[in-house]
Amino acid sequence: MQEIEQYLTDHRARNENELFELLRMASVSTDSQYAAEVAKAGNWVADQFHAMGFTTEVVQTKGHPIVYAETPAVAGAPIVLVYGHYDVQPPDPLDEWISPPFEPVVREGNVVARGATDDKGQMLTHIKSAQAWMDTAGSLPVQIKYVIEGEEECGSSNLEPFLEEYRDRLACDIAVISDTSQFAKNQPAITYGLKGIVYFEVFLEGPKQDLHSGTFGGSVYNPLNALTQMLAAFVDDQGRIQIPGFYDDVVELEQRERDQFAALPFNEQQFKDKVGVDTVHGEAGYTTLERRWARPTLDINGIWGGYQGEGAKTVLPGKSGAKFSCRLVPNQEPEKIGAAIEKMLQDLVPNGIRMEVKHHHGAPAVVVDLDSPYMAAAARAIEQGFGVAPVFIREGGSIPVVTVLRDLLGVDTLLLGWGLDDDNTHGPNEKFSLEDFYRGTKASASLWQEISKIKRAVE
Amino acid sequence: MQEIEQYLTDHRARNENELFELLRMASVSTDSQYAAEVAKAGNWVADQFHAMGFTTEVVQTKGHPIVYAETPAVAGAPIVLVYGHYDVQPPDPLDEWISPPFEPVVREGNVVARGATDDKGQMLTHIKSAQAWMDTAGSLPVQIKYVIEGEEECGSSNLEPFLEEYRDRLACDIAVISDTSQFAKNQPAITYGLKGIVYFEVFLEGPKQDLHSGTFGGSVYNPLNALTQMLAAFVDDQGRIQIPGFYDDVVELEQRERDQFAALPFNEQQFKDKVGVDTVHGEAGYTTLERRWARPTLDINGIWGGYQGEGAKTVLPGKSGAKFSCRLVPNQEPEKIGAAIEKMLQDLVPNGIRMEVKHHHGAPAVVVDLDSPYMAAAARAIEQGFGVAPVFIREGGSIPVVTVLRDLLGVDTLLLGWGLDDDNTHGPNEKFSLEDFYRGTKASASLWQEISKIKRAVE
Repeated sequence: MQEIEQYLTDHRARNENELFELLRMASVSTDSQYAAEVAKAGNWVADQFHAMGFTTEVVQTKGHPIVYAETPAVAGAPIVLVYGHYDVQPPDPLDEWISPPFEPVVREGNVVARGATDDKGQMLTHIKSAQAWMDTAGSLPVQIKYVIEGEEECGSSNLEPFLEEYRDRLACDIAVISDTSQFAKNQPAITYGLKGIVYFEVFLEGPKQDLHSGTFGGSVYNPLNALTQMLAAFVDDQGRIQIPGFYDDVVELEQRERDQFAALPFNEQQFKDKVGVDTVHGEAGYTTLERRWARPTLDINGIWGGYQGEGAKTVLPGKSGAKFSCRLVPNQEPEKIGAAIEKMLQDLVPNGIRMEVKHHHGAPAVVVDLDSPYMAAAARAIEQGFGVAPVFIREGGSIPVVTVLRDLLGVDTLLLGWGLDDDNTHGPNEKFSLEDFYRGTKASASLWQEISKIKRAVE
Repeated sequence: MQEIEQYLTDHRARNENELFELLRMASVSTDSQYAAEVAKAGNWVADQFHAMGFTTEVVQTKGHPIVYAETPAVAGAPIVLVYGHYDVQPPDPLDEWISPPFEPVVREGNVVARGATDDKGQMLTHIKSAQAWMDTAGSLPVQIKYVIEGEEECGSSNLEPFLEEYRDRLACDIAVISDTSQFAKNQPAITYGLKGIVYFEVFLEGPKQDLHSGTFGGSVYNPLNALTQMLAAFVDDQGRIQIPGFYDDVVELEQRERDQFAALPFNEQQFKDKVGVDTVHGEAGYTTLERRWARPTLDINGIWGGYQGEGAKTVLPGKSGAKFSCRLVPNQEPEKIGAAIEKMLQDLVPNGIRMEVKHHHGAPAVVVDLDSPYMAAAARAIEQGFGVAPVFIREGGSIPVVTVLRDLLGVDTLLLGWGLDDDNTHGPNEKFSLEDFYRGTKASASLWQEISKIKRAVE
């Protein structure tokens, strides 16, 4: 391992430059105008594997390609599946970026660019760690199967068909994903629980076109009045979600978990300062960490309608729309919650308004086994990479692939986060610490070693 | 009058071409990027007056200029003030225009362009009627003072200071404005009542920037959740406004007015077909015409926040905002209602959300004397121009200048609408019937004659 660490130190600048290269590709998967950039980023990832001599395929799908690569088999050692994604969120709102989102710059030790932490920077650590093994030892101590997709930010709709088709080739013992956060700066974490999600878009239409609000006000249902009334019905001002049956299947936190969360070095004032609010808000009766990690939520993600320009325009708009999503916790079924939301929308939409509902991707929450030897191996590897033992936490984000990997391949996933929760994932000025890029790569290199010591369960 | 009518028939094409010329100027006053086009339109109007030899001034203001012109004094005859505006509403939403908003085209006898009816086309009738008198009789039978402003669509904030400064020069007996509608095609109307207005913008801020809705959901107040909850509190689903004290000063309709409205040839099914709804909606207990003309309303005019692009973005936005306005009826004071709205917003804004409130222009409702000789003169002139006697109606729109003219100059206003209520004022594909442009100009020419027969009240 010492030789590998030295190699990673010697090649730090090269690895960073390659990350910047990848960050310059505007691989926004949700928006079709970026399709060429998405393809370019996928090919770039494939070239990394080709260069190491790994069996590599750029698998075409109905959407963006999946890059698949595998390293040589290692007799007696576990097989690891690494999942990551090379696509990124849209960069909006553009005017809040200090520097352009696809021109990476280093500020205060961080690389700032869309995708820096989610997931290009984190994903690349598991490629660069393999390269370190190949260039020093000439081989890896475990077999790694890489699945790097280009549609994570738009619902991964072609991932599951791929995983089904490649199911036999993907046989493995454990999955590894780095697409989460450390608990805090210099306090790495292993995330053992993730929330699920359901995501909706609602489109309302009233009059067939925009009308003068003076001449027509009082005669037709204004689609913006209707939209605000409908959305307001979903959550009360205590953060309690009003969807019928929403809390029926929720698994309440165990006292042991509440105690663990409470013992973490979480400073609420620092948290408030960091996000820029003077008070936290959420479901009454739970702490901030409990709400973020283990209680379901509903957030409106976007809304539009009428006149958004400068000044006063007295329009009664013909259309309005919104996007909103619920984060789900263990045992809530996305299909059941989704159906309840659809029914509630249908019950709420007033006469005089036509509605179209678009139900996007959904995924259930997942909690991963804390007591497996893989979890212990990951903890040791992280301690070697970061010099600090990890804490075990949960996370409010959704990584649907974790559920799919469990359901299709029967494996648990190690969620090893190298990011920080102020990395502005999905927001402007997304960043990733270059020190953590380096330490994450070291931890990844150690992980292959630690996992190689585990006797394969199936042998 | 026959000679004048012949002149207007002979010069119909020229007058229409000049209207198209004016419509090609994108004089959007609410948006500073159009400032040069606004100035160009103002100068074009001034050139019309110059060409007729009228005393003309382009009066600079803190905003867009006011064009002032006066025709020679006529001893013993009343003085008429004509008010109009050469600015227009923004053309949004652009993608719903069949042809570009500032490239007038004729479709089905209508000129289609932003400003066609509101107010370039209607305003121009009172200029072209004067030109007809000048070119045939060599003089006008009454003195006309023209005030044509460029800020009607952005609150007319510099009009009142102008009217105060020019008060003595503006002394007059009656005002005339054509910025309203006929009751229906071939059924001209004189509008004797207008609603008032208060207009607000609300800006909410939660976290200092957009956050990941998974990682941060449940920890901070989402400014979009807050906005929808706040706005939904303002109106119930029966169209009843929930602002404390809102209805206290409302003058209820007299039975006589309800009877008059009920006698008008209003076909609700045709109305629904025209605006494209399958059911009307508004305050319970009132007919559609009563609600449109004489009951106060609240409409959200625009809303924004979060991700509005294609696909699903799981963002917890840092900001949100909305524009909304109330239409007021006689006796409701804009200041009092405005204060009640501000207080309600302050009471509603939750902890964890910072709010900025922008209170735009306000105006009280107005009802004009039905029994004056000027009203009778206008009725005769309209019958001469259109071949049909007008009906007397009210209107949901606001023309704040009517109040200002009453308060500052002590005069009533004749609201002589040449438009139609499906002219798409403020919406895409705004239009104005060229036949009504012609008939309105004839009616205007007759109006100068009819008013000249009235003995001046002050003599």
